[in-house]
Amino acid sequence: MDNDDLRRWQPSCHRAFGEPLAVLAGAALLSLAFRILSDPKSYPSDLSPPPSRVLRCISELARCVGSEGLVAGQVADMESTGLSESVPIDRVEYIHIHKTAALLEASVVLGAIIGGGSDPQSIERLRRYARCIGLLYQVVDDILDVTKSSQELGKTAGKDLVSDKSTYPKLIGLEKSREFVEELNHEAKQHLEEFDPEKAAPLLHLANYITEAGWINNNNN
Amino acid sequence: MDNDDLRRWQPSCHRAFGEPLAVLAGAALLSLAFRILSDPKSYPSDLSPPPSRVLRCISELARCVGSEGLVAGQVADMESTGLSESVPIDRVEYIHIHKTAALLEASVVLGAIIGGGSDPQSIERLRRYARCIGLLYQVVDDILDVTKSSQELGKTAGKDLVSDKSTYPKLIGLEKSREFVEELNHEAKQHLEEFDPEKAAPLLHLANYITEAGWINNNNN
Repeated sequence: MDNDDLRRWQPSCHRAFGEPLAVLAGAALLSLAFRILSDPKSYPSDLSPPPSRVLRCISELARCVGSEGLVAGQVADMESTGLSESVPIDRVEYIHIHKTAALLEASVVLGAIIGGGSDPQSIERLRRYARCIGLLYQVVDDILDVTKSSQELGKTAGKDLVSDKSTYPKLIGLEKSREFVEELNHEAKQHLEEFDPEKAAPLLHLANYITEAGWINNNNN
Repeated sequence: MDNDDLRRWQPSCHRAFGEPLAVLAGAALLSLAFRILSDPKSYPSDLSPPPSRVLRCISELARCVGSEGLVAGQVADMESTGLSESVPIDRVEYIHIHKTAALLEASVVLGAIIGGGSDPQSIERLRRYARCIGLLYQVVDDILDVTKSSQELGKTAGKDLVSDKSTYPKLIGLEKSREFVEELNHEAKQHLEEFDPEKAAPLLHLANYITEAGWINNNNN
């Protein structure tokens, strides 16, 4: 990493502008997401999805963000932080599934709906794929926090340990965490099996891409 | 007000559960609004508005809440609080129009769109009516803060003064504030003139209802 990379590091919004403005920026951006989704001008003219399809997307996004999705995960995370070792693994999984995977779920499922996916089973398979890679991403993030330096990460390494956050390496150890990453990658790909391999290729490679990030400096440890 | 009324006073969300949970509750409720709007089951079967009409409502709500509406007003309010007398009156109006009136605007305009209002001029008139009663509500609220007791208000009286907030009574005096209330009520009703008086009656009475709240104890002062 050279000096140019280091200069690109920016403080997070709440550090740069304070928490009240960051909270308001969050509310503005959340509203903007729904505004963009609901505006016909947001879609290329050769796509122009029917309004009923757009409504399904809005409903899906609202569910993934709200009290059954991201917000539920964040609340569970807040309630668990500081408890450290006593947090059961299924609670940590609940947090990751809701706080992180829900947004990947929204991204994948919205794409499927907007693209014209109408078979509920196909959409359900993509939803499960997205949950797998969401959890995968989070387990890899946990692993990187204990195996890489701050400079390599682009954020402060070891901060999960300092903040007493429950992570997979802390709860089941580094090797078992890496095994879990492989399992999740395998399961994610299983959910893609029924699709045309050429069309599913970007999603398959995305799962591999996240998985490999967790192994990058395996040889250095 | 009897003891039963007093018992019904509840602390606000951030007092009862702390700011982080209150912020998350806000995000959850904002998402819920879009979820309800986008769900066909939210509408009575004899209404079932066409999806394109619902999309217009979602876009309208998102605009009223986001960086051009509520959020803009709250940011301007935060930046102005503590400056007291030096805040110009048009800045105070900007805050009220965006922070308070935008939500009344959304309520009125969404009703018009869902109900089948298709004439852009009619919708624009309702929008202006809503802005008037939104500002009206806020000026009345400013007046009540200096003229009524906490018990009568159901919240702490005089807190605008304590918090150094710019209010209409502080900037233009109590009498001129009450004149402004009358003007706004008059203007609000003017925007309703082109509508069927029977259908517009609830909106007209709402403007009167808010106006009268500002005069309740005029004789006591």
